Amino acid sequence: MSTQVSTIRNGVDTGTMFATLDLIKGRPELARFQFRASNRWIGGAHNRSTVKDFYAAGGEDSSRREAFELDAGEPAILLGADTGPNPAEYLLHALAACLTTSIVYVAAARKVELTAVESTLAGDMDVRGALGVDPEPRNGFERIRVAFRVTGHAPAEKLREIVERAKQRSAVYDMVTNGVPVAVDVEPS
Amino acid sequence: MSTQVSTIRNGVDTGTMFATLDLIKGRPELARFQFRASNRWIGGAHNRSTVKDFYAAGGEDSSRREAFELDAGEPAILLGADTGPNPAEYLLHALAACLTTSIVYVAAARKVELTAVESTLAGDMDVRGALGVDPEPRNGFERIRVAFRVTGHAPAEKLREIVERAKQRSAVYDMVTNGVPVAVDVEPS
Repeated sequence: MSTQVSTIRNGVDTGTMFATLDLIKGRPELARFQFRASNRWIGGAHNRSTVKDFYAAGGEDSSRREAFELDAGEPAILLGADTGPNPAEYLLHALAACLTTSIVYVAAARKVELTAVESTLAGDMDVRGALGVDPEPRNGFERIRVAFRVTGHAPAEKLREIVERAKQRSAVYDMVTNGVPVAVDVEPS
Repeated sequence: MSTQVSTIRNGVDTGTMFATLDLIKGRPELARFQFRASNRWIGGAHNRSTVKDFYAAGGEDSSRREAFELDAGEPAILLGADTGPNPAEYLLHALAACLTTSIVYVAAARKVELTAVESTLAGDMDVRGALGVDPEPRNGFERIRVAFRVTGHAPAEKLREIVERAKQRSAVYDMVTNGVPVAVDVEPS
């Protein structure tokens, strides 16, 4: 009888994970990634982004066979026809998704088996800012609250530590809390 | 023969738009909105957000009959199975969608008919940050570049002004460039 040691934990191949980390430690130039989206206006508040290729580990990554398409919209009260979540809701989703994946990866690396990760997010906005009615309120959310419920085979304190570490590593949490320089170029015609 | 004046421009009902602005000017408490998302881990890098109800104009808005569901994932090189765009790509989409809608609304308010709005976005990331390999690079994008192509029945200078005004009003552009306070609460079990 042979003994097999699976390296899959929480659906993450930790063998590959540690090999990837070692590879990047030795060749930091492989850590340069570029992600992209292209967007097209459909009409009114309806627009659609296409997400497919990206640059990773020294070259273009074309492993995705099909593009992802994402429809945005606004509800009626914000003059749309509900053709998709609105942009601010997409930002909440980006934050939830990134924190969740970070929790799952950190737990996998620390040999903690998770059974459930759920979160609810809420962002408060005074729309006078974005509507240009009053210069005082900011355009975006004043604050975002995230409530996680994390269940797994570890003491509560360990699960809290994992969430804390995930916050420290999450790409979108970093961007949403600290901001990113954005350059906008326009070609009118 | 009667003469009908349509208030629809760029797919936006500008009559309703100006009525909404007037209403909020008179009753600023109606400008308090709250948007939400709830997220559930499926396995590995796969998680799904549900977006439906929100608070707007003095009460819960339940006008959406069905919830939007958004699947996130990671490509193979980041240990996922490509179950959806990754969280950083969702953030690019949120930014593209918000700037585009802002451009369309600002143009409608200024009586400019647009014929096309297209954009490409790219975010550069050194993944040593998010992977925890090196404390030096930040976790998120170092920078985001947005390239807009805007076509409409107006001089180039006017179209540039509209994009500039849209940047000043966009909720997600504000959040991504300036950051937002995020409070994360954890309930382990």
